[in-house]
Amino acid sequence: MGLDKNSGFMIGKGKPGKLNLITDVPGVKVGHVTLRDGDVNTGVTAILPHEGNIFRDKVMAASVVINGFGKTMGLVQVDELGTIETPIIMTNTLSIGTAATALIKYMLAQNPDIGVETGSVNPLICECNDGGLNDIRGLHVTEAHVLDAIANADVQFAEGVVGSGTGMTCLGMKGGIGSASRVVRLDKKDYTIGALVMSNFGEFGNLRIDGEPVGRRIKDAQNTCKKDKGSIIMLLATDIPLSERQLKRICRRAGVGLARAGSFYGNGSGDIAIAFTTANRVPHYNDQSFVPMTMMDDDHIDPVLEMSAEVVEEAIISSLWHAETITGRSGKVRRCLRDYLSMLE
Amino acid sequence: MGLDKNSGFMIGKGKPGKLNLITDVPGVKVGHVTLRDGDVNTGVTAILPHEGNIFRDKVMAASVVINGFGKTMGLVQVDELGTIETPIIMTNTLSIGTAATALIKYMLAQNPDIGVETGSVNPLICECNDGGLNDIRGLHVTEAHVLDAIANADVQFAEGVVGSGTGMTCLGMKGGIGSASRVVRLDKKDYTIGALVMSNFGEFGNLRIDGEPVGRRIKDAQNTCKKDKGSIIMLLATDIPLSERQLKRICRRAGVGLARAGSFYGNGSGDIAIAFTTANRVPHYNDQSFVPMTMMDDDHIDPVLEMSAEVVEEAIISSLWHAETITGRSGKVRRCLRDYLSMLE
Amino acid sequence: MGLDKNSGFMIGKGKPGKLNLITDVPGVKVGHVTLRDGDVNTGVTAILPHEGNIFRDKVMAASVVINGFGKTMGLVQVDELGTIETPIIMTNTLSIGTAATALIKYMLAQNPDIGVETGSVNPLICECNDGGLNDIRGLHVTEAHVLDAIANADVQFAEGVVGSGTGMTCLGMKGGIGSASRVVRLDKKDYTIGALVMSNFGEFGNLRIDGEPVGRRIKDAQNTCKKDKGSIIMLLATDIPLSERQLKRICRRAGVGLARAGSFYGNGSGDIAIAFTTANRVPHYNDQSFVPMTMMDDDHIDPVLEMSAEVVEEAIISSLWHAETITGRSGKVRRCLRDYLSMLE
Amino acid sequence: MGLDKNSGFMIGKGKPGKLNLITDVPGVKVGHVTLRDGDVNTGVTAILPHEGNIFRDKVMAASVVINGFGKTMGLVQVDELGTIETPIIMTNTLSIGTAATALIKYMLAQNPDIGVETGSVNPLICECNDGGLNDIRGLHVTEAHVLDAIANADVQFAEGVVGSGTGMTCLGMKGGIGSASRVVRLDKKDYTIGALVMSNFGEFGNLRIDGEPVGRRIKDAQNTCKKDKGSIIMLLATDIPLSERQLKRICRRAGVGLARAGSFYGNGSGDIAIAFTTANRVPHYNDQSFVPMTMMDDDHIDPVLEMSAEVVEEAIISSLWHAETITGRSGKVRRCLRDYLSMLE
Repeated sequence: MGLDKNSGFMIGKGKPGKLNLITDVPGVKVGHVTLRDGDVNTGVTAILPHEGNIFRDKVMAASVVINGFGKTMGLVQVDELGTIETPIIMTNTLSIGTAATALIKYMLAQNPDIGVETGSVNPLICECNDGGLNDIRGLHVTEAHVLDAIANADVQFAEGVVGSGTGMTCLGMKGGIGSASRVVRLDKKDYTIGALVMSNFGEFGNLRIDGEPVGRRIKDAQNTCKKDKGSIIMLLATDIPLSERQLKRICRRAGVGLARAGSFYGNGSGDIAIAFTTANRVPHYNDQSFVPMTMMDDDHIDPVLEMSAEVVEEAIISSLWHAETITGRSGKVRRCLRDYLSMLE
Repeated sequence: MGLDKNSGFMIGKGKPGKLNLITDVPGVKVGHVTLRDGDVNTGVTAILPHEGNIFRDKVMAASVVINGFGKTMGLVQVDELGTIETPIIMTNTLSIGTAATALIKYMLAQNPDIGVETGSVNPLICECNDGGLNDIRGLHVTEAHVLDAIANADVQFAEGVVGSGTGMTCLGMKGGIGSASRVVRLDKKDYTIGALVMSNFGEFGNLRIDGEPVGRRIKDAQNTCKKDKGSIIMLLATDIPLSERQLKRICRRAGVGLARAGSFYGNGSGDIAIAFTTANRVPHYNDQSFVPMTMMDDDHIDPVLEMSAEVVEEAIISSLWHAETITGRSGKVRRCLRDYLSMLE
Repeated sequence: MGLDKNSGFMIGKGKPGKLNLITDVPGVKVGHVTLRDGDVNTGVTAILPHEGNIFRDKVMAASVVINGFGKTMGLVQVDELGTIETPIIMTNTLSIGTAATALIKYMLAQNPDIGVETGSVNPLICECNDGGLNDIRGLHVTEAHVLDAIANADVQFAEGVVGSGTGMTCLGMKGGIGSASRVVRLDKKDYTIGALVMSNFGEFGNLRIDGEPVGRRIKDAQNTCKKDKGSIIMLLATDIPLSERQLKRICRRAGVGLARAGSFYGNGSGDIAIAFTTANRVPHYNDQSFVPMTMMDDDHIDPVLEMSAEVVEEAIISSLWHAETITGRSGKVRRCLRDYLSMLE
Repeated sequence: MGLDKNSGFMIGKGKPGKLNLITDVPGVKVGHVTLRDGDVNTGVTAILPHEGNIFRDKVMAASVVINGFGKTMGLVQVDELGTIETPIIMTNTLSIGTAATALIKYMLAQNPDIGVETGSVNPLICECNDGGLNDIRGLHVTEAHVLDAIANADVQFAEGVVGSGTGMTCLGMKGGIGSASRVVRLDKKDYTIGALVMSNFGEFGNLRIDGEPVGRRIKDAQNTCKKDKGSIIMLLATDIPLSERQLKRICRRAGVGLARAGSFYGNGSGDIAIAFTTANRVPHYNDQSFVPMTMMDDDHIDPVLEMSAEVVEEAIISSLWHAETITGRSGKVRRCLRDYLSMLE
């Protein structure tokens, strides 16, 4: 595994974007609120698909449930209509209700027409269970935290033990938020595919970095993560024009990156992929019956599929790489990847 | 359309259960909280699959999204694991976050192991948009209302303008909660299929009662429901032993009943079917790797499929039949079916 | 139920196209080969999506399996790529292999590049089981019959006991091929939705015509079709620009028409819907990575959804209306709808 | 990568069955017919789920389409009814019609009731495109070859360039048939999961063996397989009692093994997984309405999921390992893995 200036490692063969983050896709922003205080180790992460009014100017989207032991809400409508119309909120499993209410209030404030002149709104809330390191029963995430995460959204953002990733555990190590990007050249123009993951899956010992089964070489008698519990949320953003069907194809390749990082899609894991493109927009109000759009010729799509797999794989490893060892609920210590790697050498 | 003692009309050819309600399935209970005060016309309805601890003793279940313009949450896990592990809560679209938080707190209180010794819990929240008659932006449903609806659950329960059905509009008329049941005889034993719907779909003029296109004969120049907006939630309960795959087949037949009542699955309608059987249980804790179960021979399943369609059709008509005319948000009047029928004669 | 010049009955409220056939969609053609000789009552029907080279100039398409007790082949690729690249062949269940081989040979003859410079081809073969009236074990359909059906394709074509519909039984009566069309006006321009069905589903007594449960009034002590066996293939064609996701929505509405005609999607019925649009084409060879296309704004799609349901309902009734009573395998007589209707009056 | 007596390499951490073949699952048999003559490099492989009459004694089954650029037929019914009722036939893409007809005739001969006293039969035919090395346009597979492959079925069978794998290309090398098995201990009893693949996917350079990206180290200026075309069929058999839903979960893990071997699920690849269990049988004729069955507690299923991924990964590598270099259509040479590995050392 090679080194690079951004993350100290390199996955695959593609070319990262400028920041090697999902925000390399123009318009995409990410914000965190991190809660760390004794037994409280949780938070919120918000992903904004673009800088305008997302409800009025929806992005084309799709999702795939790779393994469905999860509580993500909003996917029913995403797949029926092929659009996302709100920021995407990530938090812990038991705070999804709070996150939904906060996001609904945010959307109502921005859009006085919702629920009066027009219909309702579809909040998109993703979650993983951070109960191992966080007092998840305490429901410490508030509506204000959700609004703050949206307000904090920026092109630059932290990875690792931040936002909704604060209390997450991945492959028996400290997990969290990871991101990466890849540049794909199509018809002499550069496009970007970005990924952001909240990593919380897998068994200790199963980690693979760019193929190498590193996990098998790491020993830790104290480590108790012998079962693939948890989950992973994998968001993919791009400025490549794709149809809803093609975005679903992209989502399925997230499962390739996930498998290569060491998951076998364990029973207890809610493995969810969501993809959107900023290049095909659907207006909420439209006098016309038709919407012009652009899709790819599927015969040319292989580089996009391959980089979708690779960017997710790298985002997962990046979530581990950027994590630090923390002491969580009831004094439980979760060591980070770099600690384990240093023990190898 | 014939008359019967329960509901004044009769759909199809099957035999109803004792109450002609979903609660004819032993163990199932339904509770309402109704909020009616000026512009506030909304509420909560709770369905309990059985009387024990649902988290520890899950019921086998499945769902089908017939049309996905809806925000129902919990279906991802229902379909992956084939179980329901909480009461089912119905409310208005913008109150799903509140309902989720309330249901999570209820489950935490009942199960001190959740989030500590065991994993999280999957709240199942269904919704329709009552914004036409209700000040939905006001978010008038509270967590206490949700807990009250669960506490109110009983075998006897009201239909029509009650609970989460309070502000609903169906086929241009006053919609709401409707229920029905059918008895199916298999291998010399009687079983029950029950349905409960929250009806909020359809265009004025499209109503059909037992096939007859009654809607075409009803005139109302003031009626503005010319577009199939809204949604319908269709719950099916049974004590027939069925596999998850077979419960999915049952759900698809809900779409038959819906079509026959006058829906063409309009764009703006979240048409969701969820089915569970009390006859196949999955324990949360299990020392054994295996679970014995019983399924039907599909070659014998036709009466179950046919009655699943019929019981949903009747539950929809029953929701209209039990509704009364109300004045909702901003003085908007929504007339009920019986008013329209009386004008016919 | 009203009368019209084409078919003697009228379903719903829409406006039929010029011929009230699927071929009202410009470019679509249908051809039959009918085999009737004693115990042999079967055939082939071919539907051509347009008049050019379909492999090189594919039509956008989607499918939905409403009930999957069927053997239709080709759907895996239709849904992955969103295209149809061959004529669609319908025949009896046990002749699908022969039909596939014949269609493959036809495609190879037309396209010398297949299997050499380019990949393979996806034959789309639909079937219903005509074993009730046909010596289906005899495998009487030959490759030549399939090629003849393609060669026979024209704008004008017969309904009823013809082509692949020859041996079919529907709702306990003589079924077969039916077709209908509807005109939909969008942005001041007329578009057409056409349906063609091969009807072979349902129990005697369940027939509904435009809602009216006619079947309940028809008596026939000899009729043995008490079980919903068989199947139905429902093809929808349109010149409205729709995305693959939207074509899937159209397919689901075929299930509305089917339910209204009297089906409850019986266990033994392979109920398959396939839709294509001639307005979005995908070239087999493309120097560019991108394909411009047009889709509908889903907020305007309701008339298209409603007419998709209605045109399928009418096509089913039309298949019954155009059928005549026949004597099939082992002297079995299957009476036609008009015979039964004449007994009513 | 370690060595073992069966295959010279070892994937993962599980324990293989006695033969390390799919036939380690009691009752399962595999037969080949291989056609190699100049430009003709193709064949047929048949998999028998058990030794009895499969139509009368069906095995519980499910499938997942990981990428749908493929023509596999029979999946519609497998997923609706959750059963396989015929041997599974694999061949080249353009011979699926011939294979279907042959399999239908085989089933008719075995079951005189089909098409007369009972319904039809669902032939399950899988395919990959061997057009690179085989004169696929010549349609060299005959019905007799299919019947021979069934007749040849045995517990011992060859891997590599045999049967339907004869003309296949995988990861730019010679692909073909591969198989493996794993023993899983549940409740103190040993069960077996077996896999058989027909490997025809992937780009040269992407091969990974047990994680190691071997493909990157292999150079071959002449190799032209730069695009992930082809396909892979992945069959999983087990004697563990699983429900249809759980078999679908198993199928999804085939995608993990596939990703780890080097696939990113390329556009042109029909990646199909089919799983069956011999432990849950469904009788064709049944006087009773109910069928007792056993399923796993999903909370105990992780070892089964992990081994399902691993056994597919090993079967793929095994297909490469057992292949030899061949000269195919038009003198095209396809080198085998061992040739490439020998060049490394």
